[in-house]
Amino acid sequence: MSVQQPVWTPPVRRKEIPVLKVYNSLTRSKTEFVPINGNLVKWYNCGPTVYDASHMGHASYVTQDILRRIMTDYFGYDVHFVMNITDIDDKIILRARQNYLFDNFRAKHTTLTPELVDLVVTAWTDYVQLKVSKGLPESDKIQVGQEQTAWTSIAARFQDRAWRQECLKRDEKFEMHFSAANKTLAAIEEAEKSLGNQTGADVTLKFIDASKDVLAPALDKKEGSTVTDPSISRATATYWEAEFFKDMRRLRVREPDTLTRVTEYVPEVVSFVEGIVKNGFAYEVDGSIYFDTRAFDKSEGHDYAKLEPWSKGNRELLEEGEGALSAGSARRSAADFALWKASKPGEPSWPSPWGPGRPGWHIECSVMASAIFGDSMDIHSGGIDLAFPHHDNEMAQSEAYHNCSAWVNYFIHTGHLHIEGLKMSKSLKNFITIDEILQKYSARQLRLAFLTQLWNAKIDFSESLMTGDVRTIETSLNNFFANVKALLNQAQVDGHPLDAQHRFRDVERELTDRLHHSQSAFRAALCDSFNTPEALNILRELVSRTNVYINTRGPNLDLGVIERIARWLGRMLRMFGLGEGETSEIGWGQEQSYEDGSVNREEILMPYIRALSSFRDGVRKVAIAKGENALKDILALCDRLRDTDLVPLGVALDDVEDGKALVKLVPPAELIKAREEKRAQAEAKAAKKAVAIEAERQAKLVKLEKGRTSPQELFRPPNVPEGTYTTWDENGIPLTDGEGKELSKNQAKKVQKAYSDQKKRHEEFLAWQREQGN
Amino acid sequence: MSVQQPVWTPPVRRKEIPVLKVYNSLTRSKTEFVPINGNLVKWYNCGPTVYDASHMGHASYVTQDILRRIMTDYFGYDVHFVMNITDIDDKIILRARQNYLFDNFRAKHTTLTPELVDLVVTAWTDYVQLKVSKGLPESDKIQVGQEQTAWTSIAARFQDRAWRQECLKRDEKFEMHFSAANKTLAAIEEAEKSLGNQTGADVTLKFIDASKDVLAPALDKKEGSTVTDPSISRATATYWEAEFFKDMRRLRVREPDTLTRVTEYVPEVVSFVEGIVKNGFAYEVDGSIYFDTRAFDKSEGHDYAKLEPWSKGNRELLEEGEGALSAGSARRSAADFALWKASKPGEPSWPSPWGPGRPGWHIECSVMASAIFGDSMDIHSGGIDLAFPHHDNEMAQSEAYHNCSAWVNYFIHTGHLHIEGLKMSKSLKNFITIDEILQKYSARQLRLAFLTQLWNAKIDFSESLMTGDVRTIETSLNNFFANVKALLNQAQVDGHPLDAQHRFRDVERELTDRLHHSQSAFRAALCDSFNTPEALNILRELVSRTNVYINTRGPNLDLGVIERIARWLGRMLRMFGLGEGETSEIGWGQEQSYEDGSVNREEILMPYIRALSSFRDGVRKVAIAKGENALKDILALCDRLRDTDLVPLGVALDDVEDGKALVKLVPPAELIKAREEKRAQAEAKAAKKAVAIEAERQAKLVKLEKGRTSPQELFRPPNVPEGTYTTWDENGIPLTDGEGKELSKNQAKKVQKAYSDQKKRHEEFLAWQREQGN
Repeated sequence: MSVQQPVWTPPVRRKEIPVLKVYNSLTRSKTEFVPINGNLVKWYNCGPTVYDASHMGHASYVTQDILRRIMTDYFGYDVHFVMNITDIDDKIILRARQNYLFDNFRAKHTTLTPELVDLVVTAWTDYVQLKVSKGLPESDKIQVGQEQTAWTSIAARFQDRAWRQECLKRDEKFEMHFSAANKTLAAIEEAEKSLGNQTGADVTLKFIDASKDVLAPALDKKEGSTVTDPSISRATATYWEAEFFKDMRRLRVREPDTLTRVTEYVPEVVSFVEGIVKNGFAYEVDGSIYFDTRAFDKSEGHDYAKLEPWSKGNRELLEEGEGALSAGSARRSAADFALWKASKPGEPSWPSPWGPGRPGWHIECSVMASAIFGDSMDIHSGGIDLAFPHHDNEMAQSEAYHNCSAWVNYFIHTGHLHIEGLKMSKSLKNFITIDEILQKYSARQLRLAFLTQLWNAKIDFSESLMTGDVRTIETSLNNFFANVKALLNQAQVDGHPLDAQHRFRDVERELTDRLHHSQSAFRAALCDSFNTPEALNILRELVSRTNVYINTRGPNLDLGVIERIARWLGRMLRMFGLGEGETSEIGWGQEQSYEDGSVNREEILMPYIRALSSFRDGVRKVAIAKGENALKDILALCDRLRDTDLVPLGVALDDVEDGKALVKLVPPAELIKAREEKRAQAEAKAAKKAVAIEAERQAKLVKLEKGRTSPQELFRPPNVPEGTYTTWDENGIPLTDGEGKELSKNQAKKVQKAYSDQKKRHEEFLAWQREQGN
Repeated sequence: MSVQQPVWTPPVRRKEIPVLKVYNSLTRSKTEFVPINGNLVKWYNCGPTVYDASHMGHASYVTQDILRRIMTDYFGYDVHFVMNITDIDDKIILRARQNYLFDNFRAKHTTLTPELVDLVVTAWTDYVQLKVSKGLPESDKIQVGQEQTAWTSIAARFQDRAWRQECLKRDEKFEMHFSAANKTLAAIEEAEKSLGNQTGADVTLKFIDASKDVLAPALDKKEGSTVTDPSISRATATYWEAEFFKDMRRLRVREPDTLTRVTEYVPEVVSFVEGIVKNGFAYEVDGSIYFDTRAFDKSEGHDYAKLEPWSKGNRELLEEGEGALSAGSARRSAADFALWKASKPGEPSWPSPWGPGRPGWHIECSVMASAIFGDSMDIHSGGIDLAFPHHDNEMAQSEAYHNCSAWVNYFIHTGHLHIEGLKMSKSLKNFITIDEILQKYSARQLRLAFLTQLWNAKIDFSESLMTGDVRTIETSLNNFFANVKALLNQAQVDGHPLDAQHRFRDVERELTDRLHHSQSAFRAALCDSFNTPEALNILRELVSRTNVYINTRGPNLDLGVIERIARWLGRMLRMFGLGEGETSEIGWGQEQSYEDGSVNREEILMPYIRALSSFRDGVRKVAIAKGENALKDILALCDRLRDTDLVPLGVALDDVEDGKALVKLVPPAELIKAREEKRAQAEAKAAKKAVAIEAERQAKLVKLEKGRTSPQELFRPPNVPEGTYTTWDENGIPLTDGEGKELSKNQAKKVQKAYSDQKKRHEEFLAWQREQGN
C-alpha cells in the first residue's frame, strides 16, 4: 500500500449550531448555559407545600416540565431532576390541627344547646374583630360588643363595589373574611330560631359545618397546644402529596428523578444548621436559630439576596416567609430569618442541640439539595414568587454552609399565573383547582396554552386563549395529521409508493428546504431561552406551508416529503409532552413480531370483539329459531350485552337482518349519547302511549257509567223529573205522560228504544262490575 | 431599583462534553464530525439492487440504521437520510429475461419428446464447457463431445475435498456450477429412460424444472435479444423492492426519509452525463459514454479513487462493476468506466443524444444524491465492498460534474458480514436469507448481535454469538427490568413510595454517581465513532452494579434511584432500535385521559374480555338451569367459544363451580398446547374405553356362542363322541352310558344340571339371534 490517499480537508461550517442561552434570574438576562459536569445537569426544583388541593398556580409545574423535557429530550442532556415536598410547614400544622379539633368538636356536639350557640357567637365576634375589621375603613370600625347589630350596615355596605375595593386594598383576603363571617352569622340566626324546638342531630351538624371557617381557628386558638400527636400533620401532608402527584400525572408532568421530603431530612437539617452556626452566620434566640444576614452580607465573597437585593428590607415578604406560627420572635435584624424554630406545644418537634424544634422553611431546600448534589448545582427552578425571600435565603444559607460563592449557577423562575388578567386568589373567585380545570380542558390543551407563552413572563390564562388560539392550534394540527395519514393510507391501497414516478422536483426541494429551515429555526428558538411560543409558531408555519403544497401539487404529490414533515412535527410535539402515551415505561417492552409491532387499540381489540360478537350472533340465532319461552332470557342477555355492558367500552353492535351484527369501535361518549337518545325516544313513545291508553280507559269508564242505571229505573225519578210520567208497565216503560195522557205511538217507540239501549248498557255495566269484583 | 445584583461569573466546566468523531474512509481514521449546515446532516446511503430475496448481507442496513438512530435520537441531529433503489442493472435484466423466457418455454412444452431432451442435452453440454470447466484443473478438462461420458469421473473426483478446494480457488462458484450440471444430468438420464413410455405433462414439467439452472441461460443466449418489453425487468425490480422493504420493517430498520429509484431519474442521468462530457471528463464509444479517469486524475483539484487509490488498476473489481452485459467494449483506459451504456436488443433502453441506452451503475447515485442534496453532502454510507470502484467512481463523476473537490465529507463503510468466520456465499452453503434468519432469531437478537461489534470492522455472525453473548445480554436485561417492575408494583401495593423514610444515603449517592458516570462514558463511547460494543458494555455494567445494590440494600432500598436507572437504560435501548413499538407514528396520537394513558395490551383488553366472559356465564346459566333439549346448542356454542375461538386469541376461560369463569390472558401458544394435551388425553381415554367395550363384546359373544347347541342335542353326537350314551329321554337327557349301563345317580344329576344350564344358555342365544335378525 505505497499509494496514499489524497489529503482530506475538514469541512468548513457554512452555518453554526446555536448555543443554548437561558434567562438567568441571577443576571436578569439570557446567559449561555454551561453545565459544569460534562453533559450532566443537576437541577433542583422547588416542590409544593402539601396542605390543600392543587390549583392553577401549581400549573407552573407544567411549565417546569416543559423546560425539563426540552433539556432532556431535545438537547439530550443527562438531567438529574430533584424535587422536594414541603411536609413540615406552619400552614400544614395549622390546617391539620384545626381539622383535627373541628372533627373532634363535631363528633362531641350532637344536640343544639344555648351553650353551643354561645360558643359559636363568641368565635364569630372574635373573627369579626380579628379578621373582618382588618379591611374595614376607620369610619366603619365595629365597637366591641356591637358586632351583631353593626353587621347589617356592614353587609349593606358590602354591596357597594367601590367600598369593597377599598377594603380589599387594606386586606386582600377581605372578601373571604366577610363571606365566612356572613355565612356563620346566618347559621347563628337560624340556630337561635331553632333553639326552643325539638331538633335532631342533623340540624346541629348543619349549624357546626356552616360555622367551620369561624369555629376552627377559634378552637385552634383555645386547644391547639393540646394537639401533640405528630401523625396528625403527617397524615395531612401525606394525603395532599398523593393528591398532588395524581394531578401531576393527569397533567402529564413527569415524576422527579429524586423526591425528597423535609420530614425525612430533619437530622441533616440539624447538622446543616450547626455548620452555619459554626461558620459564624447564625445565632440562637430561645431555642430558635436565626440566620445573620448582616454578618453574611458583610463577609468576603458573600452577597445576601443575590436575586432581589432591593427586596432586602421588605417586611411583608419576610413575615410571610417566616410563617403564621412564628410571629414576634426576637432577632438581631428584621432581615434575619429562622433556620430552626423552637416548637411550642401543639407544633411537631424533633430533638436538636437547642431543644425540641423544627426546620425553618428555607433551610429544607438547602439541606436536601446539598444532600443530593453536594456544594453546587447547575439549575435551580421555582415560581417567581419564591425568588425573595425563599430562594435568596436558601442561597445565603447554602453558601454560608459550604463556604462557596456560587451554590446555584442558573436560577430560573417561571412567571406568575394570572386568570383573566387577574392574580388568582380564593377571594377573587377566580381560584380554580387542577381537578376543575381538567373537567373543562384536556391536559394537552392546557399544555398548549402554556407553550404559547414565555415561561418566564407573566402567564395569562383566559377563556379566550383556550377557545381561541389553543383550539385553533390543536385543530389545525389534528387536521394536518389526519390528512397526511389519509393520503398515506390511500397510497398504500393504490400501491402508490412503489410506482415508478419521480416526484422529487423543485417544489419538493423547496418544501424540504423549508423543513430544514424550520428545524434550524426551531432549534434557534429553543436555544433562545426556551422560546416556546416562537417554536410553536415555526411548527404552525410549517404546517401551513405543507398544506399549501398538498393542496396545490395535485397528482404529483410526493408522499415522502410530507410523511417526513409529519413525523418530525409529531416528534417535536411529543417532545413538548403533548403526545399520547409516554414511552417512559420501564424496560424495552415485550418483543413482538413485526406484524404485531405497530399495534393500536383497534388492532388489539378487534379479534376479541369479533369473537364476542359472533358468539352473541350464535346465541341469538338459537334463541330466535327455537322461539321457546325459556329462551327469552337469552335474548334479554344479548340485549343487555349490547345496550349496557358494551356501551361504556365503546363497542357498537348493530343487529342486521342476516343475524351477523356489525361491529364498530367508537368513542364511548358517542355510544352513550346514542343510547340516551334511544332511551328518551322510547320513553316519549311510552309516555304518548300511556296517555292514549288512559284516555281510552277514561272514555270506556264514561261509557260504562252510563249503564249504571237499570233500564227499569230509567223512566222514574230521579232519572227523569218528578211527574214526567204517571204510569209504567212491568218493565218500567212509561205508558202515560205527566198529564195521564197515553204516550203517542212515536213517543212509545222512542221510550222502547231508549229502554233496550239502556238494557244493553246496563248488562255491560253489570258485567264490568262483576269483573272488578274479582 | 438603584440596588444592583452582584456580578455573576459564568460557570467553569470541570469536565468537557466530548465531540463526535467518526471513522472516515476518506482518511482511514477517526475525524471530528463537522456538519456544514448547522444541525442538518445530509446523508446518502447506497440502497440495494433489487433482483432477489434479501439475505444476511443486507443486514448491513441494520448497522446503518443503528448509526442513523444514534445520530438522530441520541445526538439530536436533523438528519436527511436518502437511499436509492438500483432498479436498472444487468443482474435484474438477466434475471428477468431468463425467468420470462423459461416461463414461456415451460408453457409451450407439455410432452416429453426426443427433441426436447436433445435441446436440454445441448444446453447442458454448453453449460459444462462454459461454466463447470472454469474450475476444473487442466488434467480434468473435458473434451468437446465427451461431456456425458466424462461426467462420471468428474462426479467421483468431486467427492475429494482437496480436489474441490482447488477447483474453488479457480472459480469461487464452482460448487454451484457443478451442482446445477449434476442435477440437470440426472434429470436428462431420467427423461431418456421415460422417452418410450406414455408420459404425462407432469413428467415433462418435472424434467424442465430440474434443468432450469442450465436451461434458462441457454434460452437467454438464444432468444434474449427478442425480449424488448421494458415492463419485464421493471416487474422483477418492483417485486423484489417490496420484499426488501418488508424484510427491513421486520428488522425494524427505519424507512429512508427520501427514496430514489434509477428508473425515475433517467432524464437527469442523461443531462448529468452531458455535463461531464461538456467538462471534458467523458467520451463516447459506439453510443456508450465512458468516464476518462486519466483526464480527471490529471486535472487540477481532482483525485481519482480517493478511497482506494491502490485499487485503481484492479481489473476484476472493475469488470464486476461494469456488469455481465457490458463485456468487451472499447475504452481508452482499462480504468475507465461506463456512464451510459448503449443498449443491445433485449436490454431496456431510454433515449439519449447518443442513441438508446441506459445508465451505468455508478452514475445513478451521483445523479440522485445531487438531485436531492446539490453539490455536497455530509455523510455517504454503504457496505465496504462498494468502496471501490463504486464509491470512488461516484465521487469522481460528481466532482467532475460539479467541478468541486469534496462532494462527500464523511464516507462511512460498514464491515463485511462473515458467517461462522467465512464470507457468505451461495456456493459455500452458508447463504442465509433474512426470512430464514428471522425464523430462528428475533429482530432484537439480531440487532444485539450487530451492536456487540464495531460497525466498521468485519462483522462476525455465528451460532455461538447468538446463543452465547446475545442471549446473555438479552436475558440479563429482561431479568433486570422484570425485577425493577416487580419492586415498583410491590411498593405501590404497600404504599411504599409515600412513606416517610429517607433512603437517599451514601450507597444511593454512589449508585447515582455510577449512573452519571455510565451516562458520561456512554456518550464518550458513541462519540468515539459509534463504539456500540463499548456502549453496550457500559449498560451491562450498570445493570450489574444496580443488581448488586438491589440484592444487598435490603429494606432500605431506594426505589427512585433504580427506577431512574431502569428508565435511562430503557431509553438508550430503544434509541438503538431495540425497543418494542416505534413511536414514529404520524401525529401526536389520540388524546386519552390519564387513566387510559399508560395502556398496555392487557389493560386495553380486559374490560372487553370480561364483558364477553360474563355474557357467556349468563348464557350458560340459563342453558343449564332450563335444562331443555334445545339449549344444548347454546352450551355447545359456549364450549366452542372457549375451546376454538378464544384459544388463538390467548384468552383462557376456566369454568368454575359458581358459574363465573376465571378469565386469563395467556400466550396463545400455551393455550393451544394445553388444548392439544386435553384432546390427546380425551382421545387416549376414548381409545381405552373402546378397547374395554370391544373386549366385553367379545366375551359376550363367546358366552352366547356356547348356547348355540340346543339342550336336546347336547348329549348326542357330534356334541359328545359317538357311543358316549346309548339311550335318551324325550328331552335328550342320556339314560344309559356307552355300555348300556344306567347312569349312576351322581352321573344323572350332572347331566340334568348340564341340561338346564344349556337350556338357559340356549334361550339367551335364541333371544340374541332374534334380536340380531331385526
